[in-house]
Amino acid sequence: METVISSKTKTVKIGYDHPFVMIGERINPTGRKLLAREMADDNYDRVVKDALAQVEAGAQMLDVNAGIPLADEPAILAKAIKIVQGVTDVPISIDSSIVEALARGLEVYEGKPLVNSVTGEEERLESVLPLVKKYNAAVIGISNDETGISEDPDVRFAVAKKIVERAMDHGIPREDVIIDPLVMPIGAMRYAGRQAFAIIHRCLSELKVNTTCGASNISFGLPARGPLNAHFLSMAISNGLTSAITNPIEHEIRQAVLVADVMMGNDENCLTWIKKNRKPEEGAEDGGGRQRRSGRRRRG
Amino acid sequence: METVISSKTKTVKIGYDHPFVMIGERINPTGRKLLAREMADDNYDRVVKDALAQVEAGAQMLDVNAGIPLADEPAILAKAIKIVQGVTDVPISIDSSIVEALARGLEVYEGKPLVNSVTGEEERLESVLPLVKKYNAAVIGISNDETGISEDPDVRFAVAKKIVERAMDHGIPREDVIIDPLVMPIGAMRYAGRQAFAIIHRCLSELKVNTTCGASNISFGLPARGPLNAHFLSMAISNGLTSAITNPIEHEIRQAVLVADVMMGNDENCLTWIKKNRKPEEGAEDGGGRQRRSGRRRRG
Repeated sequence: METVISSKTKTVKIGYDHPFVMIGERINPTGRKLLAREMADDNYDRVVKDALAQVEAGAQMLDVNAGIPLADEPAILAKAIKIVQGVTDVPISIDSSIVEALARGLEVYEGKPLVNSVTGEEERLESVLPLVKKYNAAVIGISNDETGISEDPDVRFAVAKKIVERAMDHGIPREDVIIDPLVMPIGAMRYAGRQAFAIIHRCLSELKVNTTCGASNISFGLPARGPLNAHFLSMAISNGLTSAITNPIEHEIRQAVLVADVMMGNDENCLTWIKKNRKPEEGAEDGGGRQRRSGRRRRG
Repeated sequence: METVISSKTKTVKIGYDHPFVMIGERINPTGRKLLAREMADDNYDRVVKDALAQVEAGAQMLDVNAGIPLADEPAILAKAIKIVQGVTDVPISIDSSIVEALARGLEVYEGKPLVNSVTGEEERLESVLPLVKKYNAAVIGISNDETGISEDPDVRFAVAKKIVERAMDHGIPREDVIIDPLVMPIGAMRYAGRQAFAIIHRCLSELKVNTTCGASNISFGLPARGPLNAHFLSMAISNGLTSAITNPIEHEIRQAVLVADVMMGNDENCLTWIKKNRKPEEGAEDGGGRQRRSGRRRRG
């Protein structure tokens, strides 16, 4: 089970036997007034800055969203994608709830992108999946439908299954569907964590598809969200999560992913961990954590 | 599935629907020359100090070990247990590889202790399990046998199964056996993490027994062991681990356990997390982590 996403020059593989894929979430004007205004004014300086910073921090992919009220979202999304593809080589997740915007984004994208997203709603399935097929893209399937987000994990899994099956009906291979189990805030729903882990595990073992999630929703409304989000992520990875739309700029998130790669056997010989945790005088790239012993090897 | 351990006045329940149980590991002279010399000289000041500090830091149980070369281990273990039971009320894990020491410890212990440990070796099974039964104790079963520690997780699981079945033959109920899957260093064995998670999950779902482990072995030989141990612990908990012999004095370990309790739905209404992460001026007990919002309620 391996989802292959690409830019013109770079390929990213998402899967249980590959390092975890962080999809940088920052290029999204939702809740970022300044970014929204700039993008609407045809100013993409901040988009470029956010793209470079996230890639520098370790994002293997970037999510690009242009959801700005009253703006020409299809045009802005297409332009943002072209600009990001001009300054980085990482593949992109084309993020919109407007089908026309997804279409315009797909039109300009170079490579094989990820479409973010389709839900289990009939109208969405039948409008988004043909586009995904047309451009030979991969797609994120979100496990809600016309009835909303079920609190029953079996229902959410059933929606995920429906999306995968419908995608296959449209000629999209199973490995090009990535399921988002919809993580609920644990402050409001006691078993939101167990539920997410269970759905993720079933996607891996039963549906045999990759998974992704927005990892910060879990801690909504709680204090000290950093460690909550970070441990939620590593716990989810140990249950089979293979990617997340997240903020690689946050040290705790980056560290959780590095550790999880070690624990899942996907950081071969622990070389990345050792490299990142060399003592400062040896040029460690990532602070934090006690360092009881220095790394011994360099990669490459 | 619930393992009940007790002192004279306090009961601890270990189980999937209970907060994770940290068994403080510090009272152990292995590798602590000063402590070893003091215990051999009938000086238990450091034992008392370590006991109090670990309970203060959140240990719900304490492991007590007196493995000192050439010393009278049975006598020292019995005395250490009496002293620890005199200054704290938490239940104890009586830790020795010498059957006579376990026997002496059990003789003096007040309450229902945990015996640490029995292996799958015939001679150990037949000498330790009758003692466990005699004192109505619980026991940690370590998944190695005469052939050593298998690198095959199926073999380690089979040893665990044998220990549980043999215990039941001796009249010890299933819930009084806690399996240690034997965590291997991931720097030497690439899939040590996946293996541990898989065995733990099978102990929960198939054997229906609780699990424990020494959580620091995973990071042996690697730099920056703190975050490795902490995330390994939360990842293992999300796969069903219900207790660990660990060091609650370490902030990252304590934090991993607090977060994991939230994520598993075992910190009801997130009250403990909120209490520990109140802003400093409101009396937060545990530093670290960003605090975007203060806690609102007190427990008790």
